[in-house]
Amino acid sequence: MLETTIAAIRAADEAAMAAARELHGRLTKPAGSLGALEELSVRLAGLAGLCPPPLPEPAAVAIFAGDHGVHAQGVSPWPQEVTAQMIGNFLAGGAVVNAFARQAGASVTVVDVGVATPLPTDPAVLEPTAVDPAVLDPAVPRLVVASVRRGTRDLTVTAALTRDEALAAVQTGIRIADELIDAGAGILLTGDMGIGNTTPAAVLIAAFTGADPLDTTGRGTGVDDPTYARKVAVVRAALARHTPDPADPLGVLAAVGGLEHAALAGLILGAAARRTPVLLDGVIAVSAALAAAALAPDAVCAMVAGHRSAEPGATVALRHLGLDPLIDLGLRLGEGTGALLALPVVTGAVRVLHEVATFDSAGVAEK
Amino acid sequence: MLETTIAAIRAADEAAMAAARELHGRLTKPAGSLGALEELSVRLAGLAGLCPPPLPEPAAVAIFAGDHGVHAQGVSPWPQEVTAQMIGNFLAGGAVVNAFARQAGASVTVVDVGVATPLPTDPAVLEPTAVDPAVLDPAVPRLVVASVRRGTRDLTVTAALTRDEALAAVQTGIRIADELIDAGAGILLTGDMGIGNTTPAAVLIAAFTGADPLDTTGRGTGVDDPTYARKVAVVRAALARHTPDPADPLGVLAAVGGLEHAALAGLILGAAARRTPVLLDGVIAVSAALAAAALAPDAVCAMVAGHRSAEPGATVALRHLGLDPLIDLGLRLGEGTGALLALPVVTGAVRVLHEVATFDSAGVAEK
Repeated sequence: MLETTIAAIRAADEAAMAAARELHGRLTKPAGSLGALEELSVRLAGLAGLCPPPLPEPAAVAIFAGDHGVHAQGVSPWPQEVTAQMIGNFLAGGAVVNAFARQAGASVTVVDVGVATPLPTDPAVLEPTAVDPAVLDPAVPRLVVASVRRGTRDLTVTAALTRDEALAAVQTGIRIADELIDAGAGILLTGDMGIGNTTPAAVLIAAFTGADPLDTTGRGTGVDDPTYARKVAVVRAALARHTPDPADPLGVLAAVGGLEHAALAGLILGAAARRTPVLLDGVIAVSAALAAAALAPDAVCAMVAGHRSAEPGATVALRHLGLDPLIDLGLRLGEGTGALLALPVVTGAVRVLHEVATFDSAGVAEK
Repeated sequence: MLETTIAAIRAADEAAMAAARELHGRLTKPAGSLGALEELSVRLAGLAGLCPPPLPEPAAVAIFAGDHGVHAQGVSPWPQEVTAQMIGNFLAGGAVVNAFARQAGASVTVVDVGVATPLPTDPAVLEPTAVDPAVLDPAVPRLVVASVRRGTRDLTVTAALTRDEALAAVQTGIRIADELIDAGAGILLTGDMGIGNTTPAAVLIAAFTGADPLDTTGRGTGVDDPTYARKVAVVRAALARHTPDPADPLGVLAAVGGLEHAALAGLILGAAARRTPVLLDGVIAVSAALAAAALAPDAVCAMVAGHRSAEPGATVALRHLGLDPLIDLGLRLGEGTGALLALPVVTGAVRVLHEVATFDSAGVAEK
């Protein structure tokens, strides 16, 4: 499944990109006056192989949730149970991601890909479905249980995952992408939940970019100085123990990743294979995007960087991917919140190519 | 009317701001993890005097259009007729501002406050109305004719406006703010159209901030090097001729402003007097905001900077106002487009205070 998906990922369509650039020059606005939105719309034309590309609607957020053995090293001040408790909050519609998704008209799919503690029982929990437009209902957050194991192993002691476990999580991500796109989604947004998950993200970013752990490790949900020092030491120790090889992306995900990171890499690859844009959230998403790009370099054509997380590793990863984020407001929440804030910018960029009059049609003089 | 409006503008309500900060600490997210959105929501609580402040809905864009005598100095490559032609485009729904407004569900009111050439006749043109919810219909752009004079005088030769003309334009802006808020608008967005209007904006910003014309003058719709040099010289000459006194804001607007700049200053003051947020677009808006803040310093409490225009003067003005923009994507189109892109961020910031569960109510453990 992974190999088929990778084989389906193609480079951007140059003709569609040229057509979008040419169209921009005829619309009733000074050339270039929409700044980064113009190039974004050109990229999306290249991805779709069409000018104008389809409006990225409806939008679907996929939140992959997992826990982390490295939590035992004291890298986060939050108890591990919060991962499962926040899933309850997502399904009840009470989290920030829900508020932003309701505003944007986006559906929310929560995927337990490896939560350690029991999920809250909730009558609103739905079973995974086959092709079903109801999975895109913005009013009903949905839970898919696809647990690979109840949290990763402690990466300071051993590999976080076996290679098979990492592959299973990647394939879950691909399956969710396919399911959402089959149901009609025009854009996928990455979300994540997992107490401690900025630690494996920092290791992944260091492994794929070669950056120093000091530059890839941040304060996550807000750790104090001693915890931060411990976190950097953990990242450094993980790199020393596993010497992850970026030429073997699945091996890197297995050694030092998380189940949600691996699943997000799969979601990104799945979207790229279907020529559907995937709007990246914060540091967890961009660490997964590095793995996806290592597996299939052309997958970058499908990626749109939603925002610049306050986590320093996010900036390192975005630079490596050659992506400029759309929003830069110091967010560090995850869940998909930064991607949702950026969604109207993406939609607006495409809408211009669909709806704006040309100088000719509007009878407006040119300079 | 101006004096009454200024007298009604009050400082932010500290108790409401404290309540918003306290509420943020109880919501199911790490403290501070929403970055700039948290402080934005606190500011809007302070403006409304309520926590949570009302959702900023519905949104109303007011595009003030005017022409400029200084166009005769060759500061723009576009013919002056484009101002009127673009009004036709706005009313037909074909401009970028229309595409973004449809997406955001915002109404568009176009105000001719001083266009030089004849407006296009169009059966869809509506008369100005009294309190009427139909003025907020996002599907029907509306034209209000409130022309003070058919374009300003050439500010390199004489004062652009008499003091009475500048006052009339400011009062038109206040009247439009009142009308939109009376009709139910929860937030006003500034828009502008006027070939040549970045030149008076550059003079206004230099006059109110003391910055050098080289730092306040940009390339507007995209002028070549000789035109840019001429534009800077024009800005410098205007300052030398009029020596505008920032302690007399109406005098500054009259000497070196534009009718749309003056009207926008009025719109901002009108919104502030009604404790309604006003989302600023680009360089024209922030030059007008400087005049509004000079007339009533507490008006800044109502201002939200939508985006950082590519025009350098916008950054100078925002710094002077102490405002950080929400979006920074190199836009330089005007019309209200940058404000519309930022609108979901503002709405999202407020929505968090309305809809997100607390740790207590959601049964989520704290760190």
